[in-house]
Amino acid sequence: MTNFFTVQKKDKNSRARAGVIHTAHGDLQTPCLMTVGTKATVKTLTPADLKKIGVGCVLCNTYHLHLNPGEDLVARAGGLHKFMNWDGPMFTDSGGFQVFSMGHGTVSDEIKSRERRHSKSRVLEISESGVRFRSYLDGAEKILSPEISIQIQNKLGADMIAAFDECTPFHVDKNYTRNSMEMTHRWLDRCIFEHENLKSPTKLFGIIQGGIYPDLREIATDFVEKSNTPGICIGGSLGQNKSQMYDVVEMVMARISPEKPVHLLGIGDLDDLVRGVERGIDTFDCVTPTRNARHGLLFSSEFPDKKLRITNSEFRENFSPIDKNCDCEVCQNFTRAYVNYLFRANEYLGIRLATHHNVHFIQNFVRKMRESILTDQFEKFKTEWGF
Amino acid sequence: MTNFFTVQKKDKNSRARAGVIHTAHGDLQTPCLMTVGTKATVKTLTPADLKKIGVGCVLCNTYHLHLNPGEDLVARAGGLHKFMNWDGPMFTDSGGFQVFSMGHGTVSDEIKSRERRHSKSRVLEISESGVRFRSYLDGAEKILSPEISIQIQNKLGADMIAAFDECTPFHVDKNYTRNSMEMTHRWLDRCIFEHENLKSPTKLFGIIQGGIYPDLREIATDFVEKSNTPGICIGGSLGQNKSQMYDVVEMVMARISPEKPVHLLGIGDLDDLVRGVERGIDTFDCVTPTRNARHGLLFSSEFPDKKLRITNSEFRENFSPIDKNCDCEVCQNFTRAYVNYLFRANEYLGIRLATHHNVHFIQNFVRKMRESILTDQFEKFKTEWGF
Repeated sequence: MTNFFTVQKKDKNSRARAGVIHTAHGDLQTPCLMTVGTKATVKTLTPADLKKIGVGCVLCNTYHLHLNPGEDLVARAGGLHKFMNWDGPMFTDSGGFQVFSMGHGTVSDEIKSRERRHSKSRVLEISESGVRFRSYLDGAEKILSPEISIQIQNKLGADMIAAFDECTPFHVDKNYTRNSMEMTHRWLDRCIFEHENLKSPTKLFGIIQGGIYPDLREIATDFVEKSNTPGICIGGSLGQNKSQMYDVVEMVMARISPEKPVHLLGIGDLDDLVRGVERGIDTFDCVTPTRNARHGLLFSSEFPDKKLRITNSEFRENFSPIDKNCDCEVCQNFTRAYVNYLFRANEYLGIRLATHHNVHFIQNFVRKMRESILTDQFEKFKTEWGF
Repeated sequence: MTNFFTVQKKDKNSRARAGVIHTAHGDLQTPCLMTVGTKATVKTLTPADLKKIGVGCVLCNTYHLHLNPGEDLVARAGGLHKFMNWDGPMFTDSGGFQVFSMGHGTVSDEIKSRERRHSKSRVLEISESGVRFRSYLDGAEKILSPEISIQIQNKLGADMIAAFDECTPFHVDKNYTRNSMEMTHRWLDRCIFEHENLKSPTKLFGIIQGGIYPDLREIATDFVEKSNTPGICIGGSLGQNKSQMYDVVEMVMARISPEKPVHLLGIGDLDDLVRGVERGIDTFDCVTPTRNARHGLLFSSEFPDKKLRITNSEFRENFSPIDKNCDCEVCQNFTRAYVNYLFRANEYLGIRLATHHNVHFIQNFVRKMRESILTDQFEKFKTEWGF
């Protein structure tokens, strides 16, 4: 327990817990799925929408914001909170994931990003000092290093920031993973040094790498814990399927001490949220709810896999809400037929309604999961949702 | 004065008036600029946004909705109000303007639509019975006629609907304009017959054609007045510049009797609203506020021409609101720098914020104009705004 993080309740049958992360922009209730606002906007939604939905924390991407509009402009605007008008808790990643996913062509890459086709071979050099790469916007040569990432994130001014790590993909061998992890540890030391040097008010999260190898994950867990950052992330390759991912999370969480909030980077499907929370994960982030929305894949509790593809012709004259059990503004006011029509007509409002619904649905899911932990009903929650 | 329309106040120095159009979906205060929701959506905005902004009436396009999703689907959804969840006053046009603007390549066309490049030569035949054309969606052959337009609009179920007319462009000669106008009058009779036949609860607006020719406009004005529709529209070519347009409006409005609401089709720049209102126009519709928004051209009272181009580099680090005198949600919460950035980053939210602001700005402008008429301050209003 620290001033930064309070555990309110622990589940009896698992490591699931409900807690609060205390930030300069208010309390963040955990478990929490951070909503991804890559380029300083959760696509189509306003911060007022996010508040109404009950979004607890927005995660923005350092890589994108460094390239455009640049951290200096954001700093002159008064920081990222002011720039985008989000006054709640905020997290930025380090930029590492985006840079390295350009260099490695991997399954992990495809699972996590699916934007590889736009970003082929843009990494020029990875070395102890950092990484040289080309901007996806204009091809300009850029450098990211532990120091630069912390400087950028400090200027952006999120409440929680991430250490700069090499995000190792699935296909590399154990030797590469070990060497990479060791470099990530030296980079973590440099991040902490730069963070102290800048007297940054942000809270730094160290990142546990080590791939799918239990012994490496052990070393990484111990190293990151010892380095005493206020929060911890689990990153890197989590295996080639969900079962392997849960094993990796399990081995880390079984070892980690329970004082700090633990964030699972880039993960957030419904089942992953449940499996992560029962292993002790406090926070998550995932682009899937918003990205799926833009592709017309919407959450609905009425379907076995909790999803429907709104563009399917079966919804053309279906005048029910997207999810009859959902109390979001979209489900209260619009039909599947109308959203289907908006997508077919390429109307912006379709993407907005879809995004609003998906974010509401999954935030509501996590909120209910949290409530179930607080009221000793976590098992019941899992049964009700079929997990 | 009819049960449909009440004049509340007349200006002393002009034909400007404040009134109320009574519809099945509530009272519509005039003067009013209808907000265009072509395809059953005001692009990027929800009906709840429109309510908050104070939009009095939405205008949808019969042509687009006939082609997709089709009036039968809309009727099965419970009508257009239910389909798009707008429960306020609504107007549909006849589809004529869109069909004919495909056939005529004209200045009028370019001024009013700018979509000609997508719709070249799609009119197959114009005859007394109606018009055959190809769908812009799939090339399928379609027919519109007075009867079909009224049937479609009756199924869509707006509160106010428009008679099917040939919208004559600027470049045709007087002879063409006269013949076309006479056909439009015969079509109006057929529209009225079909409307009665269907026992449609919608309120039909006849359309005054006649181009820029005073004698033809006189004939058209008298014909449409005599045909006793609850409302009247002024349509067709209004000349090649604003001065000619104001002359055409003047000659019609000087002749028309003051019992019915008069709508000026497709017009709605700030100056046009003032010049139209002082000549006695009650309602307008115009795509410019929303279309300009999507192109980054935003209203701002701080500039001599009341507009700024948000994508200009001068706004990159401008942390003022779009318009410091505007009380809309966008100006209260976001800076020019942020909206500039969103446009440069091709983010949906940029278009949404721009649209919200432009619609708010011009609705506020019209609301203030109405208040000024009600309080005998119309001259002062014009002076303050520089008109």
